[in-house]
This record gives sequence, C-alpha cells and structure tokens, in this order.
Amino acid sequence: MKRFMDEDLLLSTDTAKRLYHRYAAPMPILDYHCHISPREIYEDRGFDNIAQVWLEGDHYKWRQMRANGVPERCITGDAPDKEKFSRYAETLEMAIGNPLYHWSHLELKRYFGYDGPLNGETADAVWELCNERLRGGLTAREMIRMSNVTLLCTTDDPADSLVWHQKIADDEGFGVRVLPTWRPDRAMSPEKEDYPAYLKELGRAADVEIGSFDALIGALKKRMDLFEEMGCRISDHGLPFVMYEPAKKEEIEQIFSRRLAGSSLSPREIRQFKTAFLLEMGREYDRRDWAMQLHYGVKRDNNEKIFRALGADAGIDCIYDHAPAADMTGLLNALARTDELPRTIIYPLNPADNAVVGTVIGCFQEGSVAGKIQQGSAWWFNDHKEGMIRQMTTLASLGLLGNFIGMLTDSRSFLSYTRHEYFRRILCDLIGGWVEEGGYPEDERALEKIIRGISYENAVRYFGFDIRGQKVYNK
Amino acid sequence: MKRFMDEDLLLSTDTAKRLYHRYAAPMPILDYHCHISPREIYEDRGFDNIAQVWLEGDHYKWRQMRANGVPERCITGDAPDKEKFSRYAETLEMAIGNPLYHWSHLELKRYFGYDGPLNGETADAVWELCNERLRGGLTAREMIRMSNVTLLCTTDDPADSLVWHQKIADDEGFGVRVLPTWRPDRAMSPEKEDYPAYLKELGRAADVEIGSFDALIGALKKRMDLFEEMGCRISDHGLPFVMYEPAKKEEIEQIFSRRLAGSSLSPREIRQFKTAFLLEMGREYDRRDWAMQLHYGVKRDNNEKIFRALGADAGIDCIYDHAPAADMTGLLNALARTDELPRTIIYPLNPADNAVVGTVIGCFQEGSVAGKIQQGSAWWFNDHKEGMIRQMTTLASLGLLGNFIGMLTDSRSFLSYTRHEYFRRILCDLIGGWVEEGGYPEDERALEKIIRGISYENAVRYFGFDIRGQKVYNK
Amino acid sequence: MKRFMDEDLLLSTDTAKRLYHRYAAPMPILDYHCHISPREIYEDRGFDNIAQVWLEGDHYKWRQMRANGVPERCITGDAPDKEKFSRYAETLEMAIGNPLYHWSHLELKRYFGYDGPLNGETADAVWELCNERLRGGLTAREMIRMSNVTLLCTTDDPADSLVWHQKIADDEGFGVRVLPTWRPDRAMSPEKEDYPAYLKELGRAADVEIGSFDALIGALKKRMDLFEEMGCRISDHGLPFVMYEPAKKEEIEQIFSRRLAGSSLSPREIRQFKTAFLLEMGREYDRRDWAMQLHYGVKRDNNEKIFRALGADAGIDCIYDHAPAADMTGLLNALARTDELPRTIIYPLNPADNAVVGTVIGCFQEGSVAGKIQQGSAWWFNDHKEGMIRQMTTLASLGLLGNFIGMLTDSRSFLSYTRHEYFRRILCDLIGGWVEEGGYPEDERALEKIIRGISYENAVRYFGFDIRGQKVYNK
Repeated sequence: MKRFMDEDLLLSTDTAKRLYHRYAAPMPILDYHCHISPREIYEDRGFDNIAQVWLEGDHYKWRQMRANGVPERCITGDAPDKEKFSRYAETLEMAIGNPLYHWSHLELKRYFGYDGPLNGETADAVWELCNERLRGGLTAREMIRMSNVTLLCTTDDPADSLVWHQKIADDEGFGVRVLPTWRPDRAMSPEKEDYPAYLKELGRAADVEIGSFDALIGALKKRMDLFEEMGCRISDHGLPFVMYEPAKKEEIEQIFSRRLAGSSLSPREIRQFKTAFLLEMGREYDRRDWAMQLHYGVKRDNNEKIFRALGADAGIDCIYDHAPAADMTGLLNALARTDELPRTIIYPLNPADNAVVGTVIGCFQEGSVAGKIQQGSAWWFNDHKEGMIRQMTTLASLGLLGNFIGMLTDSRSFLSYTRHEYFRRILCDLIGGWVEEGGYPEDERALEKIIRGISYENAVRYFGFDIRGQKVYNK
Repeated sequence: MKRFMDEDLLLSTDTAKRLYHRYAAPMPILDYHCHISPREIYEDRGFDNIAQVWLEGDHYKWRQMRANGVPERCITGDAPDKEKFSRYAETLEMAIGNPLYHWSHLELKRYFGYDGPLNGETADAVWELCNERLRGGLTAREMIRMSNVTLLCTTDDPADSLVWHQKIADDEGFGVRVLPTWRPDRAMSPEKEDYPAYLKELGRAADVEIGSFDALIGALKKRMDLFEEMGCRISDHGLPFVMYEPAKKEEIEQIFSRRLAGSSLSPREIRQFKTAFLLEMGREYDRRDWAMQLHYGVKRDNNEKIFRALGADAGIDCIYDHAPAADMTGLLNALARTDELPRTIIYPLNPADNAVVGTVIGCFQEGSVAGKIQQGSAWWFNDHKEGMIRQMTTLASLGLLGNFIGMLTDSRSFLSYTRHEYFRRILCDLIGGWVEEGGYPEDERALEKIIRGISYENAVRYFGFDIRGQKVYNK
Repeated sequence: MKRFMDEDLLLSTDTAKRLYHRYAAPMPILDYHCHISPREIYEDRGFDNIAQVWLEGDHYKWRQMRANGVPERCITGDAPDKEKFSRYAETLEMAIGNPLYHWSHLELKRYFGYDGPLNGETADAVWELCNERLRGGLTAREMIRMSNVTLLCTTDDPADSLVWHQKIADDEGFGVRVLPTWRPDRAMSPEKEDYPAYLKELGRAADVEIGSFDALIGALKKRMDLFEEMGCRISDHGLPFVMYEPAKKEEIEQIFSRRLAGSSLSPREIRQFKTAFLLEMGREYDRRDWAMQLHYGVKRDNNEKIFRALGADAGIDCIYDHAPAADMTGLLNALARTDELPRTIIYPLNPADNAVVGTVIGCFQEGSVAGKIQQGSAWWFNDHKEGMIRQMTTLASLGLLGNFIGMLTDSRSFLSYTRHEYFRRILCDLIGGWVEEGGYPEDERALEKIIRGISYENAVRYFGFDIRGQKVYNK
C-alpha cells in the first residue's frame, strides 16, 4: 500500500513508476489552453490568502460545496474568506474519488509543502501555512515558474487589444511565453441579445463598419493579423454541438441583415449562420496554419435562480446530449473536400460520444501532419482519472495514442498545473500496465519517445511553437 | 485466490477487507424502496418450497431461463415447482458474471446455510435443504429479521387503503417499521385505457368527484394526508424519460376534459399533462418535505406474444434510449426557480446517461441539505457489479460520493436483502482501492464516516426517518 | 512482468492461464463471418511479399498510416511495396494499445515465427523473413490450415453463382468447409443509383423478371435454394440502424414501382421498403432455420475526397449514433408475434448501445434454442481489448455469457485468425478473474464447458453445422 499522495501515487506497476519518474516528470509544461488573465500575469498578482486563489472564481469547487449543503453565503456570498475555506475543507473530505480531492492535495503539496489531508480538523493549520507562503512571495509568476511552464496560451476575444500580451512579451524578466488564443464565440452568437452591441465593439477594434456577414468576416481577418503578430497559433470554439446546416451565401447575408434589423432568428437560421461562420473561419485557419479547437456538448446556465444571482460560469452547466455524428462529419468533409481542413482538435463533453469522435477523426486524417485531427484530452466533466483513462483507451483502441498532444489545464487558477502531473501519472500507469501484461515491448527508446511526446513534445511540434520565441511551421 | 463466495468475496485489497468487515457489514439495512407486499408481511407468509420464493414473480429469473432455452411451461407455466427449480439451477451455471448468480448464492448462504454451487447436479439436494428450512419457520418476517432491517418502504398507489401498513404499525410484536411510498403512476397515465376507471377508484378513496385536473390534484392531496399519517416520506415516479413540456393551466384542464370525454391524446398533450402533474406533485412534496424519486429510461412490454399471455412485468422490458438532458433540466429548473424543488433522486436506466445525470444534479444542489439532489443507486438492468462501479465512479468523479444515500433492493422477494451485502462489498472494494493507490488518506475516522454513511446513515438522515418511530424533519 | 507477447499475454491470473492453455487454446476455429475470397481459397493464392497480405485491402491499417502522417502514395498509391511496409512498421510503433499492434505481432509470431517488435528499425529484417516464408509455401490454404479452422463462411451476394464454393466442395484435398453467407444488402438498397441495374443482374441469376416487390422476394427465394444447397445457414444485413416503419403491402409495391420508374424515394419510403424487406427475409430465414445477422451503426464514406479517389471501404467510415431502441423492438416483435422470428444476432457498432441491445435481446429469448437472440461479438471499431471486455461484461451482466457464440474474424486477410487467440485470451482473463475473486466456483467441469463453448462449440451448435459435412438442425 502507498502512503497518501506519495511519489508513486496512482502508479501501480514498476514499469509505470519508471516511465513516470524517468520520462514524464522531468518534462516542462506547455499549457496550450487556459483561462488565466494575462493582466494578472503581467502585474504578477499576489494573494492575501488561499481562499482568494482557490474559491474566487472556481465553479468546480462551488458545485461541490453546494452538494455538501454549504449555504451560498459561504460559497459566493459575503462570508469571510476563512469561513469559506473551512467549509471547502469540510466538503473535501466527502469528495473521495473526486478530481478536486486530488488536485487540491497536489497543489498543497507542490506549492505549499503540505502533504497531509485537508479536512475540517486541519483547515485552520492549512489556512495559516498557505497564507504565510502566499505572503512570502508565491505570486502568479512564481507559481508559473515553479510549474516549469515554457509557454501558455490564454483565451481571448477578437475585439481584445492584446495589450497585456504585448507588455508580457516586452518584459524580458519573465521567461515564459504567453500567447493569445483566438476565440470568436461572441462573434458567432447571433442568438445573444447583445450581438449588435458586440458587433459595434468588434467593428471599432478592427476599424471596419460591420454591415454584412462579409464585412464581419473581413473584420475578423484583420483582427487575426494582430493575433498572429502576437504569436497566436490556435483558435477555439465553444459549441452546444458540432453542427452542419449549409446554406447559400445570399441566405447567410439575409439572416445577418434580419438579425441586425432586430429580428430574432429561427433555430435553423442560427445553425445555418454558425455553419457558415465555422466554414469561413476553418478555411482561414488553414491558410494561416492555425489549429482549430472545437469544444462541444455543453448546456449552460440551467438553474435560473443561481444564474440571476451570479451570471454565467456559476457551476450550473451540464452535459448536452444532442450531438449528431452526421453533422460532425458534414462539417469536416465540407472543409476537407477542398483541402481546407486545418489541424483540428475535437473535445466532446459527453463521454458516451468518445467512440463516435474516435471514429470520425480517423476519416479525416491525412498524410501532411502526424495526428492532424485530434481527439482532445478529457475535458471539464471528464477531467478525472476515469475520464482520462476512457479518453486515452478510446484513442489508443481507435487511433494512434503515440501522436496524442496531451493535457491542457483549462484552468482559471495559477495553481492548476498539477493537473499535468495527475494526467502524466495516469498515462504512465496505463502504458506501464500494457507493457507488464506483455502487450507492448519493454523498448526504452520507443517508450521514452511516446511518454515524452504525449507529455510535452507532441504539442510543441503539432502547434509549431518555437519555445525560444520563433514560430516554426510544421506544414 | 479466494474460495467461492468466501468472506472476502469481491474484496481485493487489505483495506477493502478491513473497511467491509469493520464498518459496512455490521450496519443494519434501511430499505427505502421495494415492492414486497405489506399484507404478506403482516400475515407473516410462509412458503412450501424455494421455487415459490424465487420463481413466482421474479421476471429477472424468467428472462435468463428463456435465454437458456427453457420452455415457458417450466418458467411461468404449469410444470411442477421442483421441475422449475431444476431448470433454474441448470440456467444458473451458464449465468457466469450475472448478478443473479451472486444473489442466488448469497441467499443460499445467508438464509439456508448452503455455500456450494447451485447447478443441475446439486439442484435436488439444494431443493431439499431449502424446503426443510422454509418449513422450519423461515417465514417472511423471519427473513426480514435475519437481514437486520430497521425500516422498509413499500410502493403504494394513492387509492390504496394502507390497511396492512396500519395493522403492522399496530402489531407490537414486529420491530421493523414498514412505511408506504407514494407512487401515483396510474394517476399520471391518461394514455392508458383504464384511466377513467382509475379516476373513479381514486375519487372513491378520496371522497372527491374528479371532474377536472384541479380536482384530481385535490383528491391526491387528501390521500397524501393519509400517507403522511402512516409515516410516508418518499414518492416515486416511473417515466419513459424525464420530460418537460410546459403548458398553461387552461390547456391542461382542456386536455383532461377531452380525455374524460373519451378522446385520445396526442403525444405532445400527454407530455404536457405529465409535466403539469409532475410540477404539481413536486411542489406538494417540497411543502411536505417528502423526497421525490424519478425512475426513467424503460420501454415496457416489448414482446406482444408474451404480454398477451402474462401481462406486465413478465421480463419483456428494455432500456429506452430517448432522454433529452434539456427536458430534465427544464423540469428541475421549473421547480427550483420558485424554491419549490424537493429533495430529488434521479435513477437513469441507460448507463450511457450516467454522466449526463451526474452533471445535471450538480446544477440544482443547494445549501439546505447535504446531497439534496441524488443520482440514485444502480437500478434494475444496472444492478450488478459493473453497473454499481460505473454509478459510484461517475458519482465520485462528478459529485460527492460521501453523501450518497446508497443501496435499495427494488425487490419483489423477502430474500433480496443480500443485494445490500453485494453493494457494500463493491463499495468497500472501490474505496479500499483508492486508499491503497494513495488517492485518499488511511484516515479511519473519515473512512468510517463515509462507509457507514453510504451503507446506512446517510439514508436515515436524508429521508428524515426516526428509526424508533418518530419523524425527524431534516429541513 | 511478462515478456512481450509471451505465452501468457493478457492472462493476469493463474486461473486465467489454466483456462486458456487447457481449454481455449486447443479448440479449432469456426469462422462464421468473414470477407475472404472463395476464389483465392480455391486457387490457393500465393503472395510475393508481406505488404500484399497486409496492406492490399486492409482499411484498418490505412487509417492508422494516415493518422501517422504517411502520404497516401505510400498507403494506397504507387509507392513500392517495401516502402509501404516500412511506413506501416513506423506507424505501428505509435499504435500502442491499438488492436492492430497486437494482431500484427500475433500474426508475425504464429505464421512467421518472429517474436520481436516490428518498427522502423526492424522493418527490413521482418520484410525479408516474412517474404522468405511466403515464397516457401505459406499460401492462402496453408494459412487456413495452420490456423486449425474447421469451417468458414464467406459473405456473398444473392446474385453470386457460388461457383468457387462448389469447386472447393468438390476438392477433396482441402479439409476445411467453406460455406456461403446470404448477404442481400444490394437488394434492399433502393436508395442506391445502381439499384435497377442490380435488379436486372439478380433477375438474370434467378431467371425471374423482377417487376414488383413480390417478384423480387420470389427471385430471392429461388436464390436461397441454391445457397441452401451449398450449405448456407446464415444471413447478414448491414444497416445504418435497425429500423421499423411498417407499411401496407400495396404501399410497398407502389414504392417499388416508383423506384423502378426512376423516381427517388423519401427517407420514410426507404425505411418502409427496408422494413418490409427485412420482415420478408426474416420470415423466410425462420422457415429455413437460418440465422439472421444484423450489423448496424455505421455511417459510410464520410470523406468525399478519399471516396472519389478510392471508393468504398477506404477507411473513411464512422460510428452512426442514431439507433432508436423502439425501432429495434418493433422489428423483432413484428416477427415474434407470429412465431416467425429466426435466431438473430445483433451487432451494434456504437459501444454506447451495448446495454440497450443487451436488454432488447432478453425480451425475445424463447425456449426453443439456448441463446436464440445473441448480442454479437465486439465488431469493427469495438474489436479490441476494451471493446471485447465491454461486450462480454454487458452480456454477462444482462444475460447468459455461457451461451455466447463467440468470436468471428470479419477478416479480409488469411492471417486474421489470430483474432480468435486474442479474443480467447481476453475471455479467459475475464472469467479467471471472476473465479479468483470468489464470484464463480473453481468447478473445472463447468468452466471447461463454458470456455470450450464460447471458443467453439456454442457456434457449431447454434448454427447447426455438422463439421463433417452434414447439416444438423437444432430446431
């Protein structure tokens, strides 16, 4: 039996232990998808206490506190930070088997040097210990540095000025590259009330009058030039499902005009608009050699009462189960038939879709890039041991696990980098088990290549990053 | 290697063994959901032979006998009981890995002291041994007593007089509480031919003329008063899927009138009616502080030939795969937005829905009760080792396993209590494994609390039962 | 730790090892479903090199090569065979956890005596070794003989002359029975452009003028007489999903007439036509005591660019996720209600459907044949360790694993028989594990019966084959 959270956590065979400690653990982190604030990185934000770091915006934790019967006052309300932290500590004890349990303890261990359990009884001592460390210089940049991150990609709206990215790039004192990711969700959401207002904002940023769909795309391309200048290599789209409802150019323009004139659109028109938008974007990504991320399968803001009080990202989202395979292949084929399908990463949220996605991506691979179409790492509600095993097992069974670009944090906190450690342990345990049962040779050269690849090197190569500051095209 | 069905059955680590024997095994049973007859409990039914106990009404067993090529005469027909039993014994040998295999052998061991295998060769000896024990006083009440049950909840129609529950309550010689559960499925099924006749029956019981939807709800509330007096704390609904098709009050009254006038309703009208019914009931449960159980995902009576011969519950049901997440969140939100969502337990039947449900419940937790919205234990076609592991792993990954209210029997037999043993073994093996891989500390206090909680104490607290006879509100 | 691919590959317990080596390994192979060419068997095709055997038509391998960034020229194009083989060898190294990795190495070991890894470095040596063996007499027949196959069933169109089957039957020098399987997919595909042309071809073969649906069925029955004469006992249907859209006889005739007149049919009409076709066929199979295979859940030819270049079966298919349980039960019930449901094997392609199918088949079992309705073995995209475990665990949990008819190759290559070895190892590991955890007795008689049954004997009995040349009816 292992001690709690010891060095061999989750590693059940000798091969797993060797692979992890020898090849996975030493690799740096490329965090190609997160939600942390470039401003806070530039300003090197400090923290008064651990509740600020952990509970300020983390709806994963809010959900579990509610599930433990903690009143909202002690979650998102005006209770003192220390009380919130105590209620989280009590909650954690019941979260046996939950990834929050593992992440929280890994963070306590790696950043604060605490390796006991956090629960109602230890809450006070942990509170003191963490806060002392935070006050002693554990700032945003220090957390990133301690995590051995070489490069990270934030998530940014096309209308964003990228001023903080520029400032970070100009600051020679920080060795980590911080690049923007192109996320035009607001630009493809005509169903939202504030769409016309957003178009004005985007128009101002691009210095374009957006009076037509064509002008919208034109404005976006101008913004893409700026993103590209700032080192952007990746786009991201959040979708309820991957849709495909093709329409003629003129129809799209009519839909756009009607929306601008204040009409509301039918569900079909919305799908037509989004399809056209994705096709335009996809082609442009391919021209620029950017990767396209498609995150889908979410139904958001399901609890009106909480939504009215807290707005979006309040821990009230669930898996959306409508995801027709025929639409997904339709969209990819529409881009592939003219040789304009960019490198694409598909992240399903419903684990029941794993095998479908695993077979869809196999239809669109082609011989210009290894692993051109990727099944993204286990995301959000799948970001735990079972979810990762499921994603990697599906990927291995249906495709080439060896080309997988691996983990991201999707984080809203500077401490979330331990998710990479968690992922790498599970990866090594899986592969170590296969070697030990005789299903893959004990070939150190091949195993090293695979483990280092999935931990770090595949992503560097796939996105064409040059860690030392230059873009390298892999196409 | 363990001996067959020995004391460490299914327990693969030392921690698992310790947790099971020390904390899980000694706990009593609270069977908050079953289908046994209160009359048979009151009358303390005796049995002539084991075929009566096992094969009289158990469609789980019928299905497997058919799958083994046993003719219907030896299943539900007029073959002698001993022949039926022999054919079941032969079938069992092929049922390797099936929960019936484990349940049947656990029952033989715990109630009859037989710990060998049951198969074609041993059938005669087992037949004699069991029948001797049955004739020697192994009656319904004795089976319940031997099982260490403190309280059980039957399943009852609103029109039921509850006379047998009253008689049991008046009988001081039986230490186990037997409470009714409110199951108004017939009252919410206007699609059934006998709906008008049922309304008459219900009207008579409530002493109300049911000429409108409003009157229907009024009659039901009167009946709920009686149920409440008899200690009822739980309701139950069986649904093809959790639906949400809201309609105006007047529309529902028109639908009801048209049905009473003999019209048949459209699928949409039926969904509207059921939605309105569930909303009315949900609000009333919340006022009374009853829990609401939603069992969904069944397509019933699929084989006309067998249905014509045997009627419902004949082993010809399957999983129904239409279950839109958007409807489920719609219904829960409609209750939650006015603060009228009762404690709710959702039981999907399709294992592909586990993760969806796991994320839906997280949207509606709130800080008044720990684990207010529950993902019900692995039910019916999921009631086996894989299904339980799947349900508990999903629950742990997405929510707080520590607050889980645990197992029920859903039984139609007085011997089914060994399902609790089976469940607890799997629970302890799961948690023991996590501790041994370093993912949870070897903290006896926390582990004891979690294991005892899931085995028994969480359910007592959640439903607000006082085992010694008084209701305790937990709200 | 086991050595790579050693004799105990995948066998993790002593019981598993004993069951495999003692009972599973010695059994011959009955390959009741494959796609190899009877002509090549008759002519005893030889091969120049291993690329011909492995890469000529195997779209499983093409997919993975594309996923490794191999250009199409080196996959299906005009690159030299040796170069193609090298690129496949390089690809394989990244295919850790993929069934191709295991299959390829098992084939190298069993047919070529090579038990090292195949990768970019060993490719040249393996190329030489295999080709030497191929030139030294490892022909199609020799491969089949080495595999201990007693009987195999090819897949054949109703219009096929079966001349090669006849020639093989007449050839006393080859001890393996080679029987046709009835696959009338083209006859039930009025949505295809070449449907009228196909009807002409079929009409000529049957010597019938096919001017009506009735005549079509008549022609097919005439062809079934020939298939039956040649020993056919099994039919097969490939379907996007199992559909049920019943229509009147006259409607079907009108649909058929409209199609013959050149109209295109609506999706509903196509479903009506296919439903009627399946019902007619099913009844006829029942009369002839043929088994009916239903393979469903595929969306084909998703990548137009590759389809235009290579046609069908090019590695561009994916799982189709529309599969309403209500249709499946509708179709089976329509046959069962008149006692005309033949033995039926249902193969879902979407693993999310496993449990649904597992419960559907239980509704239609009946006491004439053990395991009359089967959940087919893990197929195509599920044909790997995880998929097999999932299929067998579902089957065991919901039905009688002991009656399972087991593995098939579905192969397009004469070397694919090692899939049976792979399957049997996984089967024995699963059952061995259950025995070791105390869940099934260490009863050699019962275990032998189950392992031999699933490996071979159940299929012989189920289909009513007489291995020595006579049909044996099991009904």
